[in-house]
Amino acid sequence: MTSSAPRSLPVPRAVLFDAFGTLFDVHSVAVRAEQRFPGAGERLSQLWRDKQIEYSRLVSMSGRYQPFWDLTRAALQHAAQRLGLALGPGEEDALMNEYRHLSAFPEVAEVLRALRSRGVRAGMLSNGDPPMLAVAVRSAGFDEWLDPVLSVHTVQRYKTDPAAYALGTAALELPAREVLFVSSNGWDAIGATWFGYTTLWVNRQGLPIDPLGTEPTRTAANLRAVLDFFPAT
Amino acid sequence: MTSSAPRSLPVPRAVLFDAFGTLFDVHSVAVRAEQRFPGAGERLSQLWRDKQIEYSRLVSMSGRYQPFWDLTRAALQHAAQRLGLALGPGEEDALMNEYRHLSAFPEVAEVLRALRSRGVRAGMLSNGDPPMLAVAVRSAGFDEWLDPVLSVHTVQRYKTDPAAYALGTAALELPAREVLFVSSNGWDAIGATWFGYTTLWVNRQGLPIDPLGTEPTRTAANLRAVLDFFPAT
Repeated sequence: MTSSAPRSLPVPRAVLFDAFGTLFDVHSVAVRAEQRFPGAGERLSQLWRDKQIEYSRLVSMSGRYQPFWDLTRAALQHAAQRLGLALGPGEEDALMNEYRHLSAFPEVAEVLRALRSRGVRAGMLSNGDPPMLAVAVRSAGFDEWLDPVLSVHTVQRYKTDPAAYALGTAALELPAREVLFVSSNGWDAIGATWFGYTTLWVNRQGLPIDPLGTEPTRTAANLRAVLDFFPAT
Repeated sequence: MTSSAPRSLPVPRAVLFDAFGTLFDVHSVAVRAEQRFPGAGERLSQLWRDKQIEYSRLVSMSGRYQPFWDLTRAALQHAAQRLGLALGPGEEDALMNEYRHLSAFPEVAEVLRALRSRGVRAGMLSNGDPPMLAVAVRSAGFDEWLDPVLSVHTVQRYKTDPAAYALGTAALELPAREVLFVSSNGWDAIGATWFGYTTLWVNRQGLPIDPLGTEPTRTAANLRAVLDFFPAT
């Protein structure tokens, strides 16, 4: 499905956003990695991200939850070692601290304001642990715009475990199909669709879908497509 | 832990091997990919493998099991599309069929023979579905050497879900610590260690360990290290 056909869309009653990569741009992490390791920053940040996600799945599948911050650090250590990059403790902290100063994507504030003006509740449901989410939301100035801010830490299961997605329906007291779940991660959009959410995959990088027999309700190139679900009245 | 220090090892009563990459060399898959897409075969086979494992975790975490053969095909389709490689149906089948003609690593037969001569039962526990495993075992000539041959298909949960590892202890009727679980996948060795198995990580590629707070009982460069756990009497 492409973003070109504004077909008849369901009209959800609330929105839940994924955090990292969806609302918050983690590009600055890659920039910092490139500054430190010219020519290898891209590979480092990609492997770091891949390992971060892989670790979240491994500990979750095995019932061995560890907070996302700790997994993010373990992933960085492994990625640097695997690529043969020497990473001192200070440098490791400097890269980790990029997660404390993330920018929001340029369209986020406008979308959140428009949702509020249309009377639509907007929250967040993230793999990040509560301290990571609190810092990211505050530094982007979204404290007043996102409610609830939900972390999988509560259930100690990472997405795509149904227990993680169920945090959203429980907090919003809505059936899943009446909630629009928005993620820039294809696997997250698919997992949320399996759970029953109405979904929007913000496919910023133009990736092919993972062909697992399920497609997000809609796919678009940026977050403004959220507003197509909520016509201005 | 490295393979250099033959410390005091536990003496298990049986061995369970992972299949793909551990007993069976999937290198021929990469060779075929390179023949078809010169210069891109390595990237294709790596992304294919990464996606194959990723999909197994996604469907398992979401309670949406699909057989490994189907996930392997979906992973190939996605990987080719993502890399912009045109893959006709016949070519897709040709690559998939490499999984039907895998070679065993050179030391496998010798290790299996030695285990038998030492009175140690040797089986297999794999993410592969039963038809994939039957073909791989038969084409390598291991029918008489591996018992039991266990597929996660039975429980519809992929490793590292404890339900998958529990197939081994149930079939062998042994506590986990009395079984040596052998895998060339670091994540599999860690998952099996979490489950309680005595473990050997056959780290053929010399990768750094995933720093998740758990280490395999032992790490070595090839399968012969299995025999160190079972001294000849």
